[in-house]
Amino acid sequence: MSAPREARAGKRVVALLVAGGQGARFGGAEPKQFVLLGGRPLVAHAAAVLDAAPEIDEWIAVAPAGLEARTRAVLQAADVAHRLRAVVAGGATRQESVWNGLQAAADAEYVLVHDAARPFVTARLVRDTLAAAWRAGAATVALPVADTLLRVDKSDVGPSAPTGEVVMVVSGARVDRDRLWSVQTPQAFATDVLRAAHERARAVAADAAPAAAAGATDDSGLVLALGRDVALVPGSWWNIKITEPEDLRRAEHVLRLQSEA
Amino acid sequence: MSAPREARAGKRVVALLVAGGQGARFGGAEPKQFVLLGGRPLVAHAAAVLDAAPEIDEWIAVAPAGLEARTRAVLQAADVAHRLRAVVAGGATRQESVWNGLQAAADAEYVLVHDAARPFVTARLVRDTLAAAWRAGAATVALPVADTLLRVDKSDVGPSAPTGEVVMVVSGARVDRDRLWSVQTPQAFATDVLRAAHERARAVAADAAPAAAAGATDDSGLVLALGRDVALVPGSWWNIKITEPEDLRRAEHVLRLQSEA
Repeated sequence: MSAPREARAGKRVVALLVAGGQGARFGGAEPKQFVLLGGRPLVAHAAAVLDAAPEIDEWIAVAPAGLEARTRAVLQAADVAHRLRAVVAGGATRQESVWNGLQAAADAEYVLVHDAARPFVTARLVRDTLAAAWRAGAATVALPVADTLLRVDKSDVGPSAPTGEVVMVVSGARVDRDRLWSVQTPQAFATDVLRAAHERARAVAADAAPAAAAGATDDSGLVLALGRDVALVPGSWWNIKITEPEDLRRAEHVLRLQSEA
Repeated sequence: MSAPREARAGKRVVALLVAGGQGARFGGAEPKQFVLLGGRPLVAHAAAVLDAAPEIDEWIAVAPAGLEARTRAVLQAADVAHRLRAVVAGGATRQESVWNGLQAAADAEYVLVHDAARPFVTARLVRDTLAAAWRAGAATVALPVADTLLRVDKSDVGPSAPTGEVVMVVSGARVDRDRLWSVQTPQAFATDVLRAAHERARAVAADAAPAAAAGATDDSGLVLALGRDVALVPGSWWNIKITEPEDLRRAEHVLRLQSEA
């Protein structure tokens, strides 16, 4: 454990690196967090930033159940596990995975949550998100929505195009993008705020019908649902999330730009 | 005018390149469409793709009122005005600008609408969007929304961070991103469908209070509001819109990747 630094005034900060999903949309034989990006497992990219951040005392990896040992071995092989406190098993949903990680961070004053599928987190984003959380109790990296949004009410597979491609034909309506922000991670919270938000969400889910409970959300959404404010930290267009195989190709481009810069 | 080609079965296609805005968010002394990207005026990038597309017979540039002559000169200097039918003056809103362009395309069977602020439109996007419009009557390039969205109900400028940066602290709620698509251009329409959509929007705006009329939308949104279906054409992450000065820097990166590929 590193000594407290002046910038964080002695606060104990634990980060959760969330890699608990099965990567269903990603496909492939290899779990998404282990695919190589720039020759290095995906999970090791964000881990390297958390492991080196002076504001973070220790961090916890949340891995899919059964992959804890392999996750630890991958992080150690990449030499990014110097402040790794534990690898804990994730749950069936992202929210469950964060909850499981939170149990292993009970002593923290502040918790930073980051998705391992966002490899391009930076020291700047970590620092600014924590600084905002120290002031406001909760903070998330976010970008204003620039494109017009459309909500699809009904979709049909239309006649195939001349190229043979099948077209999705939809009815729906434009969504007003004013005051809409696209939320990324990292996010950071006073630990008691994040715990209260998760406890409330779990209580609501236990009472609700399965369909209503299915509307899972990110941690900043749970805190907002608690009626608490969240600080927005200007995000980066480069801080992309690897969801589809195509995203990995974009990420290779971004990585190349970074290495040239 | 080029001869009809087999792929479009003789349909007369006119494209509108919309560069009618004042670029208020972009700032700077030079109108946004004339700033250089890769040493070439922004407006010339998309113009080059429209001018070379075999599916497009002619195209019309919509320029800010007063900048028509300069726009034409810039396009001719860039040698991307071979099929330029006219340069028409834009209106106070994007919707007005498209409407003005549409008046000069009355003879077209299909109209393709593209924002000049999206320089990375490709021949593939133009072809697929038109092919989808031929089948469905209306089509737009779109991408599924991958990030969590937050709607801000109330925002305050919070206490400044230690770095001196001012943080926006918000209350609001998560927006369900299921079935949400982020809409780009190009978009393409049977001309009578696009005209009917604009005529309805203009009639609604004339009846409504100014506040209600302010909710301007893109053309696919107007067509959906007409109760008509729209085909979605898979877009590209690279097809970014230049809105802020930072976007121009990203665009320079993208351009460099393209030139290397």
